[in-house]
Amino acid sequence: MALQSKKKAKQSGECPFQEAMDLIAGKWTMSIVNVLMSGTMRFKELERHVVGINTRMLVKELKQLEAKKIVKRKAYATVPPTVEYSLTEKGESLKPVLTAIQSWAVAQLL
Amino acid sequence: MALQSKKKAKQSGECPFQEAMDLIAGKWTMSIVNVLMSGTMRFKELERHVVGINTRMLVKELKQLEAKKIVKRKAYATVPPTVEYSLTEKGESLKPVLTAIQSWAVAQLL
Repeated sequence: MALQSKKKAKQSGECPFQEAMDLIAGKWTMSIVNVLMSGTMRFKELERHVVGINTRMLVKELKQLEAKKIVKRKAYATVPPTVEYSLTEKGESLKPVLTAIQSWAVAQLL
Repeated sequence: MALQSKKKAKQSGECPFQEAMDLIAGKWTMSIVNVLMSGTMRFKELERHVVGINTRMLVKELKQLEAKKIVKRKAYATVPPTVEYSLTEKGESLKPVLTAIQSWAVAQLL
């Protein structure tokens, strides 16, 4: 227990790079951010655009991205309810990271 | 079973961006690449420089990075054995991705 809290203290707060990686490292995080770069989307649209993700995972990822303040969620009191997702300013600021990953992907994988 | 293989087929090979994310998305991947950007290192040195990682995780991550051809491992027949890790050309080509993440980290987290 003491060891675990020591480990946790060691992991957090010291290195901004590691903190950034914790924010963006999820398997789907950058794919969702990538898709949302083109604008606000409803859940079903997102599900169609994020290739290979399933509904349960998308729900979970969106909740995490909301908690990390990368994605914002807006619900409208329509019947049935409409929910829209878009990037926060923090999310949009990931654009240069996305561009770098895309260039690397094209150079290495195609 | 049929559903699983369908899902797998859907996930792989279609989108270079998603493939790239699969390669670099691990919690520790980019931290290890970051540390190795400064040159070849022995296991113990790596362990000291990758803040917060434990031995078991570092062993596992290095094996995965070797399999992905991002890191190469060189063993020398000394007593005790010396093992050195360095980046492959593919690993070194991640430099612009690292730089973009670092800039984002500094802008968002400091």
